[in-house]
Amino acid sequence: MTADSRFSVYGKMTAKAGQRDELVARLAELLRLDTPGLEWCGIHTALDDPDTIWVTEIWTDQVTHDAETRSEAVVAATGRVLELVAAPPEGSYGRVAHLHDVRAG
Amino acid sequence: MTADSRFSVYGKMTAKAGQRDELVARLAELLRLDTPGLEWCGIHTALDDPDTIWVTEIWTDQVTHDAETRSEAVVAATGRVLELVAAPPEGSYGRVAHLHDVRAG
Repeated sequence: MTADSRFSVYGKMTAKAGQRDELVARLAELLRLDTPGLEWCGIHTALDDPDTIWVTEIWTDQVTHDAETRSEAVVAATGRVLELVAAPPEGSYGRVAHLHDVRAG
Repeated sequence: MTADSRFSVYGKMTAKAGQRDELVARLAELLRLDTPGLEWCGIHTALDDPDTIWVTEIWTDQVTHDAETRSEAVVAATGRVLELVAAPPEGSYGRVAHLHDVRAG
């Protein structure tokens, strides 16, 4: 494996009952803020549970991620996301060990 | 949110002690098999746990995914992956609710 400075966030959230779509919308808003350093993100709704979503974020590097997540706009948007979760999000920070994208060849 | 026929797989695996990098390599091999329908996949190693990895796969659609995962090559490669996990993988199948890719504009 080659070294990769990219930083990633993987996690799972459980929405309050009936709030999943609104949770996705608020997360999409948070992650669409023309955020410097955010290369890719995907939000997925689970087929087997109406309240569970999974999120993947890939950032150029951890320093940029950490700075962005401390910005006032992101802190406020994160607060709006956390209003809708039924439990603390589970997940982890990490490194990109492998990335395959058909469009990137 | 717009309808999206794409199918996604999100999950977390715990490698047997010392086997994480080999697990990543076998997964990358599995997911690099020029698999029809596999649009994107990322494998991430957790910073807070030397044995945990997270995987995201995005497929064009579920029918293609299901057919591919029944192919002999994929079944064999999946077996080689599962030899290295310390516990059954956790994860779920789902739908792409939101996707943001800076390169896609």
